[in-house]
Amino acid sequence: MKKSTTARLVVGSSRESADLLYAARFKTPDPVVLLVAGRRRWLVVPEMELGRARRECTGCTVLTPQDLGVPAPRRRQLSAWAAALLRREQVRAVRVPATFPLGVARRLERRGFRLRVTSQPLFPERARKTPEEIAKLRYVQQATVNAMAAALRLLREAHVGRGGLLRHEGAVLTAEKLRALINHRLLDAHCAGGEPIVACGAPSADPHAVGSGPLRAGEPIVIDIFPQDLETGYWGDLTRTVVKGRPTPRILAMYRAVRAVQARALRWLRAGVCVGRLHRMVEREFERRGFPHTRINDQPAGFIHGTGHGVGLEIHEPPSLGRNRDRLRPGHVVTIEPGLYHPGEGGVRIEDTVVVTAGGFRYLAPCPKGLCLP
Amino acid sequence: MKKSTTARLVVGSSRESADLLYAARFKTPDPVVLLVAGRRRWLVVPEMELGRARRECTGCTVLTPQDLGVPAPRRRQLSAWAAALLRREQVRAVRVPATFPLGVARRLERRGFRLRVTSQPLFPERARKTPEEIAKLRYVQQATVNAMAAALRLLREAHVGRGGLLRHEGAVLTAEKLRALINHRLLDAHCAGGEPIVACGAPSADPHAVGSGPLRAGEPIVIDIFPQDLETGYWGDLTRTVVKGRPTPRILAMYRAVRAVQARALRWLRAGVCVGRLHRMVEREFERRGFPHTRINDQPAGFIHGTGHGVGLEIHEPPSLGRNRDRLRPGHVVTIEPGLYHPGEGGVRIEDTVVVTAGGFRYLAPCPKGLCLP
Repeated sequence: MKKSTTARLVVGSSRESADLLYAARFKTPDPVVLLVAGRRRWLVVPEMELGRARRECTGCTVLTPQDLGVPAPRRRQLSAWAAALLRREQVRAVRVPATFPLGVARRLERRGFRLRVTSQPLFPERARKTPEEIAKLRYVQQATVNAMAAALRLLREAHVGRGGLLRHEGAVLTAEKLRALINHRLLDAHCAGGEPIVACGAPSADPHAVGSGPLRAGEPIVIDIFPQDLETGYWGDLTRTVVKGRPTPRILAMYRAVRAVQARALRWLRAGVCVGRLHRMVEREFERRGFPHTRINDQPAGFIHGTGHGVGLEIHEPPSLGRNRDRLRPGHVVTIEPGLYHPGEGGVRIEDTVVVTAGGFRYLAPCPKGLCLP
Repeated sequence: MKKSTTARLVVGSSRESADLLYAARFKTPDPVVLLVAGRRRWLVVPEMELGRARRECTGCTVLTPQDLGVPAPRRRQLSAWAAALLRREQVRAVRVPATFPLGVARRLERRGFRLRVTSQPLFPERARKTPEEIAKLRYVQQATVNAMAAALRLLREAHVGRGGLLRHEGAVLTAEKLRALINHRLLDAHCAGGEPIVACGAPSADPHAVGSGPLRAGEPIVIDIFPQDLETGYWGDLTRTVVKGRPTPRILAMYRAVRAVQARALRWLRAGVCVGRLHRMVEREFERRGFPHTRINDQPAGFIHGTGHGVGLEIHEPPSLGRNRDRLRPGHVVTIEPGLYHPGEGGVRIEDTVVVTAGGFRYLAPCPKGLCLP
């Protein structure tokens, strides 16, 4: 009988569950069952995945529902796979992540299994990256920096046409074109860019507005690139804000504040720091500089999001650099991304992804900063 | 008081929950709460997403945890957002999908809410595509067909070098190069390719093996392309199997069987057909032609997966064309993808994505079929 405190159960595809990718290193579009008890790992996969799973998941005992004697009518039920495995390994109680699917949980409970939802991550060690993981994160972050450099190069080459519209090679330069350039560059490095943010002017006041249409001189252009390495599954994250030509006084002031506050936050950053205190420091710094969190035209304005987040096999993962009492530890990989948003005029955000060390931090891949493009 | 049978609750990001994308048309990397009761829809989003959500989700009442009076210490808990919304709308019982996160479910139940897990899809109408959805699916499937055409063109242009390795422009042609070409073409159409399968020779006997390394003459090359349109969220799905030069007698026989069985399945396809009967017909056809489902060297061999699956805002969604009693209905968009797999030698699969009609089917985007490339 396994100790109930050690057995951990995961159900899902590797797209849905980074825990699965982390603990089994198995990429699968369809849901599978993973049981971890002490140093042993079992993976239940559909029969068609058997060969691949055996080759790719050398640390796991790979089984199919057929191997476990799941009767044919229940062979499509993940709960039946999990129940058969738990019974075989004489495990009655398991820890599951908060995201565990309720449908499977209900069926397992009906069969007498006890499921304890962890309020903490199921694999807390995921937050502290190993040197091997940091190498993978460094790779994707460098690809991100390279894509940003290509985007900024294009903006530098562009000239300002009628009505302040940016033009390149005889055509108006749009957010869509810049996004396509970024994504093709990322793909050259085997990374999926998704929808990088290229938001110009007023829409950039929404931190997650993707952006569309012509890019304009004199307005902030927020470029936020967050690709996933298609091979390793690790993510990168990087934001720069630039203005082609002359920024408005407000955007310039916002930029100076964001840049100074980011520098200040980075100086604070080191193992042992409480993330809530760091976040409050960032909030207070913005207030002190005349940028309180407020509302303009019923829209939130000022510094309206967290200071950063962990990055790994998820784009947003622990530690969250917001209102909580977690402490930074060596090997945490986090973004530091202060931003200011002014509805009607635009936003400014500067974001870097760094590794926390005992004495401070290291950039995963450095990237120049600066608002004005010639 | 709302009827408990009508209120449906979804919690998740649009990456995790296609239901959210379907019912709110809101793309968000972070989890949100959606409540649907009759014709009314409420969406609870973090404050930083408020402006964007209000603009993009015109059919929803958009609220923030602050609007709902969620106290600051609980403002990171999705269960607190959901509870505040349900209380405000006087809803005590909700239907939730089987994938609903257990952590949120437990907290809601502790507060006295009743959650009923639907064994059926939460929005069953998702399976039958509207003309507008079919137009979106047609777009991404045409992009898929175009990417396939580019890949096959490159294989045609390649020549056979020493050791049977394919060469193009003075270098060995690899699965990685073909995959990159496919993905760049998809990106030109604003679609994310993920990891299209380009599996050559023995590895192609694993239906989900991604494939790597040099491509060889005389061996089957399975190319399976399944992109997601970055803008609309809809997926495409298409597989072709080709051989550069002369196939082995076994691969040729497998190809002929797969092609004949696919043609037969497509002839059967129409609204009203039971998917389980269709799948059994496909299984029996393969047996009749001398390809039983068996094991070779402890690996599954023969026709080892379902006949197809629904395609929409998920790459695999209902109806599943396997062992079940669902009936096809007009507007279902499904793949028909019989395949045969022979461990040690390779696989053959032909897959098209089609719309079911009253009298038969229509290809979303036709794509030529044929095994041998000159």
